Amino acid sequence: MSGLKARILGAVEADLRAIEEALVANLTPHLELVREVAGHILFNGGKRMRPLLLVLGARLCGYRGSYDTAFSTALEYLHAATLLHDDLVDGAETRRGKPAAHRLWGNAIAVLVGDFLLARALSLTAATGNPRIVAVLSRLTEEMSQGEVHQLQRKGDPGLSEEEYGEVIRRKTAVLFETACRVSALLAEAPASSEEALAAYGLALGHAFQIADDLLDYTAQAERIGKDVGSDLREGKMTLPLIRGLALAGAAERRRILALIGNPDVPAEDFAWLRGFLAQSGAIAYARRAAETWIAAAKGHLRRFPDSPTRRTLMDLADYCLERNL
Amino acid sequence: MSGLKARILGAVEADLRAIEEALVANLTPHLELVREVAGHILFNGGKRMRPLLLVLGARLCGYRGSYDTAFSTALEYLHAATLLHDDLVDGAETRRGKPAAHRLWGNAIAVLVGDFLLARALSLTAATGNPRIVAVLSRLTEEMSQGEVHQLQRKGDPGLSEEEYGEVIRRKTAVLFETACRVSALLAEAPASSEEALAAYGLALGHAFQIADDLLDYTAQAERIGKDVGSDLREGKMTLPLIRGLALAGAAERRRILALIGNPDVPAEDFAWLRGFLAQSGAIAYARRAAETWIAAAKGHLRRFPDSPTRRTLMDLADYCLERNL
Repeated sequence: MSGLKARILGAVEADLRAIEEALVANLTPHLELVREVAGHILFNGGKRMRPLLLVLGARLCGYRGSYDTAFSTALEYLHAATLLHDDLVDGAETRRGKPAAHRLWGNAIAVLVGDFLLARALSLTAATGNPRIVAVLSRLTEEMSQGEVHQLQRKGDPGLSEEEYGEVIRRKTAVLFETACRVSALLAEAPASSEEALAAYGLALGHAFQIADDLLDYTAQAERIGKDVGSDLREGKMTLPLIRGLALAGAAERRRILALIGNPDVPAEDFAWLRGFLAQSGAIAYARRAAETWIAAAKGHLRRFPDSPTRRTLMDLADYCLERNL
Repeated sequence: MSGLKARILGAVEADLRAIEEALVANLTPHLELVREVAGHILFNGGKRMRPLLLVLGARLCGYRGSYDTAFSTALEYLHAATLLHDDLVDGAETRRGKPAAHRLWGNAIAVLVGDFLLARALSLTAATGNPRIVAVLSRLTEEMSQGEVHQLQRKGDPGLSEEEYGEVIRRKTAVLFETACRVSALLAEAPASSEEALAAYGLALGHAFQIADDLLDYTAQAERIGKDVGSDLREGKMTLPLIRGLALAGAAERRRILALIGNPDVPAEDFAWLRGFLAQSGAIAYARRAAETWIAAAKGHLRRFPDSPTRRTLMDLADYCLERNL
């Protein structure tokens, strides 16, 4: 474990324990099967980024109540609901090294348990009694579902521009990070300037997080991250390393890359060649710089708050998003 | 058109027009495809029972604002979201005589547009700024999704009891009717006794409505209702006429019925035999009496309100639920 990761885990150890407890306590379906499927997606080694952002953001804004941990689970349920539906939509085989839920229980159950988790998230949100928080969360859900439709429509389209990719990951990942941070400020009844600064931090962090995740698909060793490396390519997902790689490719390389996009059986040697090409052409470095730029922006927004242990942990979290893919 | 239906339509003509306008106005996705798929399920000859209940219930409770029509569309969006997901879960081929959305656009789009409509419903709910309404709606969504999982688990199980069937239709249909009525009272800030009476009316109406709908699958002519008659049997759905028929059947009849449940290719002559058996054995009459009992209960709850044109229309709506299947 890196020193950075150890420092973060040390700082949030008690929070993570409370979040795990709340994730179990707030999951109270009447049916064993719902609990089993929801548990499969929820207790699967996730990093709890979204609940952590809410808990830490609320603390940064001076929140002293005890409700932030319970409520932070709403964001993780919402996240889990989108994972269940998106894995089905993407036809994904695995998630974090285990079979995807729709492979184990079928599409019908994946749809319905996703619906349950979404509803559970909104029930927890309703329990805050804060109409603005409810409005922000339901607006977020609308935006995310439209973002997924957009991504699905453009799947396998090698013409996707960097700008469109940015819009896809904004809706797919960054708005949820942004919302976690915004809601933390609302929960703490912080001034509008703090709310906007935290929301901007979350949005930038979310962009960096997703770019780093997309990089892993071309840079990581499968066994290291429990991820199905190369799945983005096979599913035809246009991500920044690939988009930049296409822009840098000569005619022959371009033809070779296009033949691989959306191919469910990419030969290992072709994938190895593509990894090499993306590294040598500078496409990987380009995507990494984009993530670094977002992280610098995220940290800039945090500097509006006075220095404190909580601010330092949020700074560390930003750096950690990059370290994952080094 | 029956005299009853004509009287209802005359009484709610302006309301229905306003509801249709609000359904269009509140559907504002950024993507054409989302609008197209949502429109396919929303503008499909539905009876608008749920929005109507909300508008009429609010009026019965003395609501004089202008927000009830706009908000009533939330219930129709929620209903449409569950139809999109349930048709996929049930593997349904058609809905109201047109191909089901997942047959036209695929599972992925049906899942995501359902998610969008659910989120849109909750956004409209959030816009009421009333935390109790938000809590009631999100709790409802949880209950409905769990009800669907339950129904899916028991699909094709000829051992489903009448009591369990009652629980399935409560969660599948009746709680949404109940919620439409309860929320109308909350919107009107009516006293708790009115809220409970209207909610009880809606719950009873919902039970009767679903039993009547289930009866149609064994009593209607396909061309009359634009419904895929016999689909409940083919999908293995245990409904009251079938449950009662099994209870009344002799050993040979029972074996013959069991062989048909969940059979995707029920021969026309076997289905005709089953229809005859359910009619002659008294199973149809039994289910009809159950619906009538619920309708009598629904009307009893309404009698707590003073007589008025709105109360008379709600009484008519109750009678109409039965007439549909006569």
